[in-house]
Amino acid sequence: MKRLWHWPLDPAARTVRLALGEKKAQVDMRACRPGAPIAELPDLPPGTELPVLMDTTGEQKIVASGSHAILEHLEEGETGERLLPFLAKDRAEVRRLWQWSENSFGEVNRTLLAERENQWVRRAKQSDTARLREGVHALKSKIAFLEGLAGMRTYMAGRTLSLADLSIAAHLSAYDYFGDVPWDLTPDLKEWYVRMKSRPSFRPLLADKVEGTRPPSHYADLDF
Amino acid sequence: MKRLWHWPLDPAARTVRLALGEKKAQVDMRACRPGAPIAELPDLPPGTELPVLMDTTGEQKIVASGSHAILEHLEEGETGERLLPFLAKDRAEVRRLWQWSENSFGEVNRTLLAERENQWVRRAKQSDTARLREGVHALKSKIAFLEGLAGMRTYMAGRTLSLADLSIAAHLSAYDYFGDVPWDLTPDLKEWYVRMKSRPSFRPLLADKVEGTRPPSHYADLDF
Repeated sequence: MKRLWHWPLDPAARTVRLALGEKKAQVDMRACRPGAPIAELPDLPPGTELPVLMDTTGEQKIVASGSHAILEHLEEGETGERLLPFLAKDRAEVRRLWQWSENSFGEVNRTLLAERENQWVRRAKQSDTARLREGVHALKSKIAFLEGLAGMRTYMAGRTLSLADLSIAAHLSAYDYFGDVPWDLTPDLKEWYVRMKSRPSFRPLLADKVEGTRPPSHYADLDF
Repeated sequence: MKRLWHWPLDPAARTVRLALGEKKAQVDMRACRPGAPIAELPDLPPGTELPVLMDTTGEQKIVASGSHAILEHLEEGETGERLLPFLAKDRAEVRRLWQWSENSFGEVNRTLLAERENQWVRRAKQSDTARLREGVHALKSKIAFLEGLAGMRTYMAGRTLSLADLSIAAHLSAYDYFGDVPWDLTPDLKEWYVRMKSRPSFRPLLADKVEGTRPPSHYADLDF
């Protein structure tokens, strides 16, 4: 049995949900707030954060936390679609872009996404407009880089779908939930995202409704 | 043949150098500045950054960039000391703390370490004291967390040396190069670091001399 505790707007958790979807894994999903204790797992080591996966399908119970531990664990498993390619040189390219995605979008998460959550989820009275501007600016530079890749390749790391695509799509989908991705600036990236969005693994993300928020109408539209 | 291009003060590159040292790998080391082109590898994909490892020991030439791609590639190899444990649950804990290290110390890299490099390597006329303060504050909170772990466990992720130790030690060593780690606040962490520093894999890091800089006398002292 696999169970995932996750915060639906967290890009790292979204990456894991997409990977589980691609692998057609049976998973019991538990949406929860960041920082809330997990009653079922009272002995988590210090500093454990969402997403947390519990996996009892093998001989030993495994608890993995963080996108890196969870996704590498899922890849080491024997079942489901491979999201890291067979050849070592191709795996290196996937992991490079996956790390690029987590590092580069980290700046957008800490600014734009954090402010949107403050505004809509925590209903803060005031927004930090400087942080919002900083985040919008950072996002624009990241998608300009991705537009170049999307123009060169079918998928971000080459010819096949990989964790690089899932991580990048997961981040963009979280910003898109608040209508913050300027898709018109990057037509090739948009075309790639339309393909990603049409995958069955994306459906649960498009159905997300976080209390207090309402995504824009194009968020769940496959032909936006 | 393995060749590594790296910037000596970069914590990610230091992690890779420690791992190569632990594995007793024969590596041709090429220190270079971030952003400088690598003449030998003219066809690197867009956005490639240091550290970059070229590995021609297998059937196919592999070029990996970034700590994640390089270190997972080295672990997938057949030779040398294992830095990810055998059991899946233990690997998950190592990868959790390794990711924690890269994410959490990222804040210190962008502030404190970046300012120190501005001051000493690029000889900037002025320091951004607000960023320095922010970095000092961030570093204190990270080492407070690590002090707790060091008090509980022999190594950061458990009983054996792993990539979690190497990543954390690599980051601290880069800050220590500028005398910025307040070791007296964290005796258990200091004791762990003394053990890390005494490993043969650490010697090349302690011998680093970056042009324009001079590390404090305790930097290379094994019994500081």
